[in-house]
Formats: sequence, C-alpha cells, structure tokens
Amino acid sequence: MVANAADRLIAKIEEFDAPVCVGLDPFVEMIPDSIKDAALSEFGNTTEAVCAAIASFNKEIISATEDLVGIYKPQVAFYEQYGFAGLQAFSETVALLKKKDKVVIADAKRGDIGSTASAYADEFLGEVPLISGHTTVFDTDYLTVNGYLGWDGIKPFVERAKGKQKGIFVLAKTSNPSSGDLQDLTLSTGEQVYIKMSDLITAWGEGTEGERGYSSVGAVVGTTYPHEASIIRARCPKCLFLVPGYGAQGATGKDVVTCFNANGTGAVVNSSRQILYAYRSSNRREMDFRDAARFAAIEMITDIRGALKECRLGK
Amino acid sequence: MVANAADRLIAKIEEFDAPVCVGLDPFVEMIPDSIKDAALSEFGNTTEAVCAAIASFNKEIISATEDLVGIYKPQVAFYEQYGFAGLQAFSETVALLKKKDKVVIADAKRGDIGSTASAYADEFLGEVPLISGHTTVFDTDYLTVNGYLGWDGIKPFVERAKGKQKGIFVLAKTSNPSSGDLQDLTLSTGEQVYIKMSDLITAWGEGTEGERGYSSVGAVVGTTYPHEASIIRARCPKCLFLVPGYGAQGATGKDVVTCFNANGTGAVVNSSRQILYAYRSSNRREMDFRDAARFAAIEMITDIRGALKECRLGK
Repeated sequence: MVANAADRLIAKIEEFDAPVCVGLDPFVEMIPDSIKDAALSEFGNTTEAVCAAIASFNKEIISATEDLVGIYKPQVAFYEQYGFAGLQAFSETVALLKKKDKVVIADAKRGDIGSTASAYADEFLGEVPLISGHTTVFDTDYLTVNGYLGWDGIKPFVERAKGKQKGIFVLAKTSNPSSGDLQDLTLSTGEQVYIKMSDLITAWGEGTEGERGYSSVGAVVGTTYPHEASIIRARCPKCLFLVPGYGAQGATGKDVVTCFNANGTGAVVNSSRQILYAYRSSNRREMDFRDAARFAAIEMITDIRGALKECRLGK
Repeated sequence: MVANAADRLIAKIEEFDAPVCVGLDPFVEMIPDSIKDAALSEFGNTTEAVCAAIASFNKEIISATEDLVGIYKPQVAFYEQYGFAGLQAFSETVALLKKKDKVVIADAKRGDIGSTASAYADEFLGEVPLISGHTTVFDTDYLTVNGYLGWDGIKPFVERAKGKQKGIFVLAKTSNPSSGDLQDLTLSTGEQVYIKMSDLITAWGEGTEGERGYSSVGAVVGTTYPHEASIIRARCPKCLFLVPGYGAQGATGKDVVTCFNANGTGAVVNSSRQILYAYRSSNRREMDFRDAARFAAIEMITDIRGALKECRLGK
C-alpha cells in the first residue's frame, strides 16, 4: 500500500478536523461591488474585468477560510464560460491553492470516449503533449467525472491517477431535483441505476486503494437524498464520497452523517454559495464579506462535527 | 412553426448533399511537421506553439473541405487541455467557421445541475454576464450534452436554444466499446437504459420542433451499434441524430443508414481522424495533407450517399 489521493484528502480533513470543502463558484452578480469596481476601472466592462474580479474574490475567500479547511472545489463552468480569460482566473486560483498546500477538486463533470477522456485526464490530472515533450496545465488533485460512457471513458483518469495522489469522483446520485429522471430508474435486477453506477465506481477503483483503504475512484453523492446515500455508503465502503447539496441546496449536518462510514471517515461535504455569499444573507448584511464567509464556514464545520459526534455517541 | 437549429442543420446538409460533419480533433503528434515547425520557430516549445499549430491546421483542413461539407464539430477537450491558449485556438476556429456560415457543433459533453448548466449554456449557446450587461463567448450552434443528471440539467440549454436556431445533442447510445456498461442495462420495464434516455431526449425536445419536424434536442447515437441505432430511430422520429463512429472507429456507410428516417433525413455522420489525418494512411503517404483530407471527405460523402441511395431503392 502506498498513499493515494484519498489518503491525502483524508489527511487534510484530519489536519483541520473538518470534512468540508469550500466550493469556489463565482457568480459575477454576487461578487461584492468593491471588487467589481476595482476590476472595472482597470479593465473596463470586459470578460477580463469579470475574471480579474473572480480571481480577487477567490483570493479573499481563500484567505478568510484557509485556517479552517484544507479542501477547495472550483466549479469549472463558472470560469470556462468566460473563455480564455476565465481559464486564466481558474489557473491563478488553482496555483494559489496549491501554493497553500490545499487539495483542489476540479468540478468539471467531464466524460467522453477513451481518446478524448485522455485529453481531459492530461488537462486536469496529468501532462499534456507539447510539440516536443509534455507540460502540466492544471495541477488539480481530483476531477469530477460522468460515467455514462462506461469504463473506457474512465480508464484514462484512473491511469493518470495511479501512483500520483490524483483521483476522480464519478457521479453516482446527484443532488439536483431531477436527478431521479435517470438515476432512480429500477433495473431488471431490482436495483436502481444509481446503485448499479455505484457498483461500477467500486469496480473501477479496484486496485487503487491507499493506506486508509479508500480507492482513488470516489463517488459524487448528493446529501439532499440521505436514503440513497445510506444505501451507497453501506454497499461501497472503500469509496470516498464528494457530497454536494449542503446549505444553499437545503441539507444540514443531520443529513450528511449517512455519507460517512462508522469510523467517521469517507466523505467530504461541499458548500459553495452559503459560504461565498454569506454577506448577502439577511442576518449578515452589516458584515464584511470575508468575515461573513468565515463565520458561515465555521457554522458549517461546527454543524457537521456536532452531527458526526452525536452519531458516534449513538444519539 | 419557425425555423429552428435542426432546420438550419438540415438545410446545410441539403446545400452540400452531404449528411456529414468534419470533426476537428487536433492531436499534436498527428499535425504535419511543416505546421509544427512554423509554430515552434514563432513561439518556442510552449502551449502557445501547439495552439498556433492547431489553429493553422484547422484553417487548412477547413479550406480543403469547405466546398464539400457544411457542418464541423470541434472536440472541445483537445483545445481546453491547453488551458487559455487552447480556448483561444478554439475561439479562432469557431469564428472562422461562422464567418464561412458553417454549422458548428461544440462537442463538449457537458452536464451539471441547473445553476451550473446555465453557465455552460451561456458559454456555448447564449451570452455570459459581464459586470454590466452580457457578451457572447463562443457562438456555436449546437452543444453535446450528458443527460445523466436529468431535466433540470438540460432545461437551461433548451431555454437558450429557443427561438435562436441553437440546439443540443444529448448522449443516448455512444460509439465507444464500453458504452454498454451502463447504457445497455435492462430496466424493469424490459427496455434498456439507452432507450429510456432516448425517450427522455424526445420528451425534453417537445415543443421545440421546427419546420422540418425535428426538435432542437437531438441525440448522440453511435453508428458502431447499428441495431441499437435502428431501435432509437424508430422510436424517436423527431430526434435528429449526431452519429459518431464512422471511419477510425470502424463503421461504414452501410452501418449509418439505420440512423436516417425513411425520407433520408434525420442524421449527420461525423468523421474526425479518418479525414484530418488521411495523409498518414499507408495509401496516401505521398499526398499533401490537404489533398488527402479532401479525398477522404469525398470518399466518405460518396460512401454515405451511395448507401442511402441503395437503401431508398430497397436494395
């Protein structure tokens, strides 16, 4: 056994006693005016201005929370929608997080056939080919991936991950209201599609287990569906969960406990908007956005710590 | 009825009598040395050099085939893997194609929850928010999308597409060897997952039909599985197919006919590597890469025209 991506992620959780991930989802209309005004005066009303504002905002959020959490998850859509300026902001944010030794989960939900999946794997977890030799583009630790195309679309990621403390989270049961349209359909075996996908995820991760027993192939499991989460948890003990849905999507600490194994490990819970834009909530209107984000992160960590503790005490 | 994205795509097919799409999948190691040498001397051995080579190569391929086909499909992975330089090359290629009035299918297979799907929809089919107002980033006509997350992950694309001759192709049955891992599982109703996904695709497109009867929500159906394609074709008559798998993935004209409706419309067949890198095949080693690509495109169009004609004659 050697340390894998899951070991590194669990070590970060233990270092901060916080199985929590801050989602860096920049919505331009939600970024504080002070930051946007500075960007506007430097770049005019351009995509470059938005992206400068995004990079500044992220920097402030990271600075306000870096002593609380070890894991960050930029949602790639909100960067790449601004084209090359957007990827520049993404790149800056990833570089800053890596400099601070954080675990970075690129939330991109990529998925394609083998030769194309290889390009995505090179982009986020490996090295891309130059005219001569190779170079690193985004040095992220984890990537979210869609498994609808099956094993040959997953294999390139698993290969890049091997021996390098890199990993993927494959969508199993997602947090959104319509996730059941396909994921909850019942198969002829009596199981639902999301359960079969969870079994595939387990199979795809076999042989990549690290020192703590978790594989490099994790699962995205929405905490908005605690019943489904508990089924996957029982069935896939070696699978690390990335858990969206806390906060803005409605779930609380009590809902997330089903995502953890009995020893209190096995999941990292994400919150994006509830932390990033805490200064816009009615009870924090007078607060600086950095302080508001910090307090929201502390509240979340306390809530989840408490729920896990109650659970261990058998309450 | 007003003209929708499908009408525009079908008009392009009829203008060139070619239900064919050239896939722009740039692999740096396959681009001719003459182009790479020029890029190396201008930019050194950098991602910028690769991307300059990609943009030049695409320009030559487009120039060699533009009087033959009306539809091009850049695979976004091969651009974005080079970060912002890559998206610059993608942007240049899209702009060139739009200037030539081509239909551009961005093959990105995006899929996420509602608020994030909106960002992808803005990026490829709509306008992204600036600090004040909005701007267009990539003015592509179609985007490929993954439907694993269900309707709320699809809705933002359908909304952007409405009234604007924009559309999506949702993955139904993909062309890769492992596509059956999930897609071929049998549901309790007796149907396979890919059939249920096809039904969802039809439902998601309802109300978006154009003058020719096809909706703005098409399906990706691999021609490497002609039996499955014929089932979807019979079941989803209003659904336009984007058909990968021709050429390098092994399928021929005879395999693709099952993707068309009886009137000979309803599908566009993609080939990428077999056209782009035709100069590397053993029988074309002495040929200029532009001529080789052109001949490969003509062969493909002739093959498919012939197969469709035979089919109409009932052979």
